[in-house]
Amino acid sequence: MRVGIYGYGNLGKGVECAIKNNPDMELVGVFTRRNPSEVKLLTEGVNVYSSNDIMTMKDEIDVLIICGGSATDLPHLTPELAKDFNVIDSFDTHSKIPEHFENVNKSAEEGENIAIISVGWDPGMFSVNRLYAMSILPNGKDYTFWGRGVSQGHSQALREVEGVLDGKQYTIPVKSALEKVRSGSKPELSTREKHIRECFVVVEDGVDKERIKQEITTMPNYFVDYETTVNFITEEELRRDHSKIPHGGFVIRSGSTGWNHEHNQIIEYNLKLDSNPEFTSSVLVAYARAAYRMRCRGITGCKTVVDVAPADLSLLTPEEIRAELL
Amino acid sequence: MRVGIYGYGNLGKGVECAIKNNPDMELVGVFTRRNPSEVKLLTEGVNVYSSNDIMTMKDEIDVLIICGGSATDLPHLTPELAKDFNVIDSFDTHSKIPEHFENVNKSAEEGENIAIISVGWDPGMFSVNRLYAMSILPNGKDYTFWGRGVSQGHSQALREVEGVLDGKQYTIPVKSALEKVRSGSKPELSTREKHIRECFVVVEDGVDKERIKQEITTMPNYFVDYETTVNFITEEELRRDHSKIPHGGFVIRSGSTGWNHEHNQIIEYNLKLDSNPEFTSSVLVAYARAAYRMRCRGITGCKTVVDVAPADLSLLTPEEIRAELL
Repeated sequence: MRVGIYGYGNLGKGVECAIKNNPDMELVGVFTRRNPSEVKLLTEGVNVYSSNDIMTMKDEIDVLIICGGSATDLPHLTPELAKDFNVIDSFDTHSKIPEHFENVNKSAEEGENIAIISVGWDPGMFSVNRLYAMSILPNGKDYTFWGRGVSQGHSQALREVEGVLDGKQYTIPVKSALEKVRSGSKPELSTREKHIRECFVVVEDGVDKERIKQEITTMPNYFVDYETTVNFITEEELRRDHSKIPHGGFVIRSGSTGWNHEHNQIIEYNLKLDSNPEFTSSVLVAYARAAYRMRCRGITGCKTVVDVAPADLSLLTPEEIRAELL
Repeated sequence: MRVGIYGYGNLGKGVECAIKNNPDMELVGVFTRRNPSEVKLLTEGVNVYSSNDIMTMKDEIDVLIICGGSATDLPHLTPELAKDFNVIDSFDTHSKIPEHFENVNKSAEEGENIAIISVGWDPGMFSVNRLYAMSILPNGKDYTFWGRGVSQGHSQALREVEGVLDGKQYTIPVKSALEKVRSGSKPELSTREKHIRECFVVVEDGVDKERIKQEITTMPNYFVDYETTVNFITEEELRRDHSKIPHGGFVIRSGSTGWNHEHNQIIEYNLKLDSNPEFTSSVLVAYARAAYRMRCRGITGCKTVVDVAPADLSLLTPEEIRAELL
């Protein structure tokens, strides 16, 4: 199957790498809103096109993976492109998924294409796991923990404190909260009882570190409600130790079965990711395969990860799955 | 939807309990090969029928959940019953799934019914998770650990040692092996490097405990290749501390992404179950819902868990899933 990438940031690069790992896929072009001559790909022999020229490639692309931001890009890009292409996106503004779905569904149906939206890990694999667990254990309680991982929004907030040159914030699940959930005791926990925030900042010479620490830990919305630690490091340490984009998290369902709910059952799914964008990209590519297969069976319109049967994601044939994997 | 249960052992009882937790389902009858008058249900107002009379209920049952053993019952029961009913089974002899699939598929197609086989947790939820993880991270390695849980086969082996009155064997994952896998180092591990075997036995008065311990730990196939511990306890302790049927396990995919595979990514799914049969039953019931929905859309023939989209398992509507769960 022939895949196109629309947008070449961290996510687009991750998709390019993931395609290399999937022998049934071929990258046929990357589309950018920048000047194409300034974009250098990792894959040899593949062209970079201006996003304005995408319609010239309409017949060469089986699935287009849209790698844009959820705030301003995807809300208009995905509905537009779904008119002419089978598309995948990673739209992750949870509260706006129903609206985005309706918009994309309309254009995908119009163009007789398939679109799978909100693909990634949350929304994405975490959603699928919440759904499986809730369906198996209707009598129970769900928990999602995020981390250990970099929060881009919180890192940006650090950089806006006066005297801070650069900074990185890690969201970390509270171990004792995680253990309480795993014990089956079904505690009530707020987001802030489940997470702590660890900050690494590089500051200007001679600034008052106490004042900076105070400003960070009392910052409304971002830090004041959390247990927050602030570490002062050098620019070199930041580059050396904090240049990666790790993330991860835990989805746990604690439920009970039996005539009188006498047995506890715990289902846990967790991710430990060295690279958040590359993992998201790998999920996008697996769902691109499913989109193509579903479209070949005549399915059109907007779908999400919960509408896709696992077998459609796989490189294995149905026979191989039954013989080797079940 | 109207559900029938065929077979009323631990699994059938678990299905009965699970149906109670699912408001869209109604239990319409239990079918047994025993004398129906000797079988007492938990649910009031539901009849027990002889399995010979099942055809009289053909029009009253939307999905029949077959709760039989994989060794001798299911290989003939599921193909027979799939001629006249939509059916679910928990066939778990991994190596014989392709053969069972073909047999069931033939009769289900003949009868224009749907059948979902090998539903449970392994095969079942573990298979689904192996497939998702492998599809997302094609470049990687899979690990399955079982336990802590009771192995019926190994418990039976204990009881056959001379002087042993009763016994229970727990399979336990080796913590250090689990941690090695989670670290991303992708070790090569055999089943025995991943598991230890913990035995609790009640013995006859005055027997030579050393001899029994020796016999157990050197037993071919069952124990000799494993680190095995033997604990001597009283009948009362066995009843008090070891009457439950817990189980669980871990499915871990350790993979890498990036142009040069430079980033490790770990996907883990784990279960901690107080009651193995009740959990399996809960999975069966969720897939019974999917079977009914898929049949209503005109789908017939044999399927497995990998062919079912997660949304079909859920009590929630597609709109609710998008608004609340994704």
